[in-house]
Amino acid sequence: MADYQPPLADAHFLLNSVFDLPAQWAAMDDLSEINAELAAAILEEGGKVCAQVWAPLNRSGDEAGCQWQDGAVSTPEGFREAWQTFAEGGWVGLGGSVDYGGQGVPKGLTVLFEEMQYAANASMALYSVLTAGACLALNSHASDDLKTTYLPPMYEGRWAGTMCLTEPHAGTDLGMLRTRAEPAGDSWRLTGTKIFITGGEQDLTENIIHLVLARLPAAPDGPKGISLFVVPKFLLDNAGNPGQRNGVQCGSIEHKMGIRGSSTAVLNFDDAVGYLVGEPNEGLKYMFTMMNYERLSIGIQGIGHADWSLQQSLAYAHERVQSKAADRKLRTEERADPIVVHPDVRRMLLTQKAWVEAGRALAVHVGSQLDRAKFHADADVRRRAQGQVALLTPVAKAFFTDRGLDSTVLGQQVFGGHGYVREWGMEQAVRDVRIAQIYEGTNGIQAMDLIGRKVLLNRGEWLQDLFADIREDLAAVVNTDFADEAAAVEQLMTELEQQVQQWLDSEDPNLAGTQAYNLMELIGLLTYGWLWLRMAAAEGADELDKPATARFYFAWLWPQTAALMQRLACDSTVLMTPRL
Amino acid sequence: MADYQPPLADAHFLLNSVFDLPAQWAAMDDLSEINAELAAAILEEGGKVCAQVWAPLNRSGDEAGCQWQDGAVSTPEGFREAWQTFAEGGWVGLGGSVDYGGQGVPKGLTVLFEEMQYAANASMALYSVLTAGACLALNSHASDDLKTTYLPPMYEGRWAGTMCLTEPHAGTDLGMLRTRAEPAGDSWRLTGTKIFITGGEQDLTENIIHLVLARLPAAPDGPKGISLFVVPKFLLDNAGNPGQRNGVQCGSIEHKMGIRGSSTAVLNFDDAVGYLVGEPNEGLKYMFTMMNYERLSIGIQGIGHADWSLQQSLAYAHERVQSKAADRKLRTEERADPIVVHPDVRRMLLTQKAWVEAGRALAVHVGSQLDRAKFHADADVRRRAQGQVALLTPVAKAFFTDRGLDSTVLGQQVFGGHGYVREWGMEQAVRDVRIAQIYEGTNGIQAMDLIGRKVLLNRGEWLQDLFADIREDLAAVVNTDFADEAAAVEQLMTELEQQVQQWLDSEDPNLAGTQAYNLMELIGLLTYGWLWLRMAAAEGADELDKPATARFYFAWLWPQTAALMQRLACDSTVLMTPRL
Repeated sequence: MADYQPPLADAHFLLNSVFDLPAQWAAMDDLSEINAELAAAILEEGGKVCAQVWAPLNRSGDEAGCQWQDGAVSTPEGFREAWQTFAEGGWVGLGGSVDYGGQGVPKGLTVLFEEMQYAANASMALYSVLTAGACLALNSHASDDLKTTYLPPMYEGRWAGTMCLTEPHAGTDLGMLRTRAEPAGDSWRLTGTKIFITGGEQDLTENIIHLVLARLPAAPDGPKGISLFVVPKFLLDNAGNPGQRNGVQCGSIEHKMGIRGSSTAVLNFDDAVGYLVGEPNEGLKYMFTMMNYERLSIGIQGIGHADWSLQQSLAYAHERVQSKAADRKLRTEERADPIVVHPDVRRMLLTQKAWVEAGRALAVHVGSQLDRAKFHADADVRRRAQGQVALLTPVAKAFFTDRGLDSTVLGQQVFGGHGYVREWGMEQAVRDVRIAQIYEGTNGIQAMDLIGRKVLLNRGEWLQDLFADIREDLAAVVNTDFADEAAAVEQLMTELEQQVQQWLDSEDPNLAGTQAYNLMELIGLLTYGWLWLRMAAAEGADELDKPATARFYFAWLWPQTAALMQRLACDSTVLMTPRL
Repeated sequence: MADYQPPLADAHFLLNSVFDLPAQWAAMDDLSEINAELAAAILEEGGKVCAQVWAPLNRSGDEAGCQWQDGAVSTPEGFREAWQTFAEGGWVGLGGSVDYGGQGVPKGLTVLFEEMQYAANASMALYSVLTAGACLALNSHASDDLKTTYLPPMYEGRWAGTMCLTEPHAGTDLGMLRTRAEPAGDSWRLTGTKIFITGGEQDLTENIIHLVLARLPAAPDGPKGISLFVVPKFLLDNAGNPGQRNGVQCGSIEHKMGIRGSSTAVLNFDDAVGYLVGEPNEGLKYMFTMMNYERLSIGIQGIGHADWSLQQSLAYAHERVQSKAADRKLRTEERADPIVVHPDVRRMLLTQKAWVEAGRALAVHVGSQLDRAKFHADADVRRRAQGQVALLTPVAKAFFTDRGLDSTVLGQQVFGGHGYVREWGMEQAVRDVRIAQIYEGTNGIQAMDLIGRKVLLNRGEWLQDLFADIREDLAAVVNTDFADEAAAVEQLMTELEQQVQQWLDSEDPNLAGTQAYNLMELIGLLTYGWLWLRMAAAEGADELDKPATARFYFAWLWPQTAALMQRLACDSTVLMTPRL
């Protein structure tokens, strides 16, 4: 197995050449201390922790899995020490609020660090990103008191965070959840069962801070009657340290296809003490602060696995010798050549590469829009950036992870039979990435969110903002070698504009559901095309072979837009008529 | 988990309405005893064994896996008894030669039975189909003596068969294999190491008959110096019963992503006694008799997993209640509807259905061509059918299994988080089907075989034969509701004809490799389109809702041909230029 190499060169290229984020950071008060050198140092050091401390535990963690006994969960051997090293380096709070002990590093940078975490060891990464996400929700919506109490030890990685949403009968449809919260003086008492809770029980941290959705007595039915609570595993003593055990128990953990070093818990809340976050009945909105963060992050999980798999398959394709090159020019004295010479193997490697690098670029773009939305001085800029984040988050979550599966499957395929046996790890990447298409809202739900709330609800306004950004960049490409590709991107936008108008005029209640996935994939392909053009034109592009990969992208992967545009002509009868 | 239901109604529809195979069988001496009633009885009884004896061991077999100790392999609990029941029913030799105790059932029928085996328990199925494939190679190429000795107990399932090709440094490129055979009187002595040998060691049968590729002393270099040997695990005593242990040992078995109840062995041959099959140096050709059989069979593995997964996801979509239908018409008093009402869920289910049912139809078509190629009285008919088998086998192997992965991934996705935990079995189907894209020649190799040996080498002759068959059927559809779809099929054929001409005129040595996968997928989509038109027009189509599914196929899946046709415009520079 080849050692994992954090993609530092590509990261620097994106940060500095493609997006020039240091200049953007300099213009925002809260981020002005971060410059290109500091950013490089952060990624280099963070990459080392991932590659040297986490990655060596990825295979063994999969083999061992988490173990449940009498309500306690032990993580695989080595995870505790590796978590300790990570936490002590300050990496859990890297993007956290400086007011409470976080490092305040911009999202446009931390997305790259998240990718490295997932690539090195996704099971470990989940403990970290869930904690960071829980902190974000608390920082955005909780009282100063709760923030002062919980954020510092969570940023330090001494305590971890979870998000407790799903119940056996309420997954996608959270409005049906039944966990109840009864008032008890200053706090609340929660009772109910939550399932599929990532990191719901583990032995890495001194405490676990559950963010739990529950209903107050007499709360309105459905999603508008859900409140958000902080429920610590251990109640805090007067000194603020973990003391008495709270009424939450881990009933079991799931036996899963992958991410086996990540514990996925059934949590039974039985009169557990909880603290209300913000206002009653606003819980789902608050939780979406965390969920949107996690959705982008889980998208990035797809990129992480895909890049790890690509690094392996590239190395293997250069080592494995099998059959002569068709032009028989290489190594003429040898019986066979490394398989990287064969076009059908290159098809697989290039597909992986084109997905990974465009995904990484879009992740940085969305991350930088998150920074703008939060920190920019101009309210209009903030609002516009918020729209872009809202629009692109479901695309990032679904498109990154779908391409993540494609990429890891291709990486495995390059290995032939060796890809199917466990020792090389190629099959683990497939199993591990597969969850990313499912959790944090299935990719189908992401597509519904995109077409419904993010496109049709605002009559395409955010989509128009995206297209305006793209058109600005296309203007710079018109007189280059990529003029044809730019024209194709422009044409797709024009067709999508017309299509959205038609949908807005339709009265077919099932049309949005019919077209949701097609639109998600089209926006994914469109943004990747845009970013390939940007990357191909950026300074330093040749050194990283970006123009040739961009050419491949448009010749080989972009044609998928033609298939999807044909599907857009369908009304809902094609899906609703057949008997199922 | 829903019980597996053998697809008997669809099987009868294909056999009788779509292809009218009983009439074809009646016209061929060797098959004339098989009529529609007998065929139905065979499938019904065979389906029972699969569903009732094999399927219940599928999950437990995955959990337990095969275990290796001191050179012996134990299969999962229950496998021995289940194999016994299967073998005693005569199912191993169902398609075998009647001269040696087989049942002589036509391939157009046995393909349907193979699908049921894979759907019920792919790990078990592999022991059976490998044995049947080894019998086929022996029956076609071995001496009467070898056939008399080995075929009857193999057809009875008392002995099993394997195919020993791959070596550590020689997988795709078998010409590099090093296992040597030295003469020793009437027999030979074989020495070498084979890996990835399915069923190479197990505890189901009294003996294991290895078909082994090896080199004679001073054999020509490369693929033309390979001979085929029979190497039994136990040498036979004078009564023809297993006696002394032969010099072949199982060094270990692989730990794999899936098909964990199937043992995948490393076999060390050390001066093992072997018997030459046919002529020296003709081994690879003989082995292809078995490999082509296995390739079709492995394609069918893809359909089997896909159908099992579809049956599960359909049942779940009718049970699982989550969110209201967009038109809110159903169950108006309820808070939510079964998820089968949601168009995006129907997209997934219909995609599964359209792939499965067209794949099954193509499998029956290829099977019936195999019967013609073998049994038809007219040599021209036989030759033409042989061409169709050669052309369509790599398509069946690669396209069925790629769509098998797609389908099982979709089936898993319908289950949401429950699809990722092991208990439902949805993730096992994904893990189990994944191998089918890899073994018996990776799907990339199938695509190379198709474009090189099956299309360009004969200047498109076999492709023209296929198109002629399709055009004959299209004529019947021209004045129906499916006239537009028929025109699309015709147009694709015309474009492909032009394309093949251009390729024949090209001198780009990497062009075939560049376009191989695209062509494979196009022929797959084309044949599925053809068969959807045939199915939609056949008697009884409405009862099985074929027209609506055909409509879905052309509206939703056929557009992929547009993307692939755009890729066909690429020369090899798009893949060969980027640095990798």
